[in-house]
Amino acid sequence: MQPLRSVTIVGVGLIGGSIGLALRKRQLAAEVVGVGSRPETLSAALEVGAISRVAADLPTAVAQASLVVVCTPVGYIVDQVRAIAKVAGAKLLVTDAGSTKAEIVGQIDAVAGGADWNPAVRFVGSHPLAGNEKRGPRHADPELFAGRVVVVTPGQATAADDVRTVAQFWQALGARVMEMSPEDHDLAVAATSHLPHLAASAIAGSTPERYVTLTASGWQDTTRIAAGDPLLWRQIMLANRANLLAALSRLEDSLAQWRQALESADATALERLLTEAKRIRDAVGS
Amino acid sequence: MQPLRSVTIVGVGLIGGSIGLALRKRQLAAEVVGVGSRPETLSAALEVGAISRVAADLPTAVAQASLVVVCTPVGYIVDQVRAIAKVAGAKLLVTDAGSTKAEIVGQIDAVAGGADWNPAVRFVGSHPLAGNEKRGPRHADPELFAGRVVVVTPGQATAADDVRTVAQFWQALGARVMEMSPEDHDLAVAATSHLPHLAASAIAGSTPERYVTLTASGWQDTTRIAAGDPLLWRQIMLANRANLLAALSRLEDSLAQWRQALESADATALERLLTEAKRIRDAVGS
Repeated sequence: MQPLRSVTIVGVGLIGGSIGLALRKRQLAAEVVGVGSRPETLSAALEVGAISRVAADLPTAVAQASLVVVCTPVGYIVDQVRAIAKVAGAKLLVTDAGSTKAEIVGQIDAVAGGADWNPAVRFVGSHPLAGNEKRGPRHADPELFAGRVVVVTPGQATAADDVRTVAQFWQALGARVMEMSPEDHDLAVAATSHLPHLAASAIAGSTPERYVTLTASGWQDTTRIAAGDPLLWRQIMLANRANLLAALSRLEDSLAQWRQALESADATALERLLTEAKRIRDAVGS
Repeated sequence: MQPLRSVTIVGVGLIGGSIGLALRKRQLAAEVVGVGSRPETLSAALEVGAISRVAADLPTAVAQASLVVVCTPVGYIVDQVRAIAKVAGAKLLVTDAGSTKAEIVGQIDAVAGGADWNPAVRFVGSHPLAGNEKRGPRHADPELFAGRVVVVTPGQATAADDVRTVAQFWQALGARVMEMSPEDHDLAVAATSHLPHLAASAIAGSTPERYVTLTASGWQDTTRIAAGDPLLWRQIMLANRANLLAALSRLEDSLAQWRQALESADATALERLLTEAKRIRDAVGS
């Protein structure tokens, strides 16, 4: 990727902050501008070097930008993109880092064709499969995307050139880019990300507190993501509700088989369930 | 703890091997003797320095020992302890590292009072809450028990002196020792270890394989322990079946609340469930 003049990051938390650090470390942007609702987060992002300056408001933030990355919680992304489109003057490419895509891309597609929309502004949805249970720019990491998958999800009218530019952006941060429809993306991450979060939370939440002193690394690994931000995850789960319910049904069916095997003390069935799970787990690696 | 002359480890896998490495690194035993059913495991344990010699059979293995630690899969522990009692000549303290305790301690208690039993042999059950999804002495770690909890579970007739000796043994390896009844132990670990294993396996096993390329650190953490040895875990789950079924019921109740919240798109209920899980998870730390 040719170095960019000015990249704007809306929401400089863990993900936004890591994008900024990666851009600056790899000298991919002459400046990285941060904007967001919380002054203390913006100050911290400036302090750790994730951004080169703070913009006071959205018009100032996007005035110089050729690329804007919206890294707010998923529930705010559509509004942010619409607000950016309203204030953008020149040609501007906008992407995001939201964990769900169908609702976001669908809603932006629906307005992007309308009379209100500045045609110089184009949006391409993205989802970096990176991050952890921590929050804020102080946990940002310039290598957060190195070797990780970023899914780019073109909508109905997305230009191939714009998809390519956004893909090159993530590749420049070290990521492997996959292109999928927003709907296929949401189906997949319901199983690989949103259901694990729900299940990890259910395991943690159903552990009687009098037993917590007997937790060890197994419980800790299995429940780690339950420490994530409840507001963030509430929004993700609601935005991908139907797919998450389908994934939950698959888990419930599996648990019913486990219950059956345990109730009948069926060693063969238990070993079969354990072996099948191990096979899938081993294929992924650590 | 005064250094021991000779400690025998029955089953020199990850746990047995780590005990051996810890004893030798901390110079807590003049010799560490390994015995087990698989010659290649014994050779590997010797090679990595987990044991100082291999014994060809159980009588040879325990002839010099003042302490024997049985580290086989749980399904074999009772038979091993009975076999040790048969061949032991002099005063001998035996402990184990099994993940379940009520069945093991109960069965040994039942025979230890009998006419067949050599009264010089005493057994105290232990469970180190350490280990991971890996197997074998090549993954053994002399610091595996450092800072970890080991539960010591006296039976009906266990002498306080023997409990103290076994507790000092684990403390000498760096562990924090808790004393509990075998029944309380099994109730607790059903929730903190066995249910997480079952759930991690159910999550991995119910992930459609076409989506596996979209797994990231969340799925990986949540399912990590599903890579454990199926035979080992089949035995653990069967040995703690009733408590595991009760823990599974708690998880099913929790999942029913999640389903209800998702089906009704109840943002407040979702945030409450996420917040409660985070509270419990945060209390444990990473």
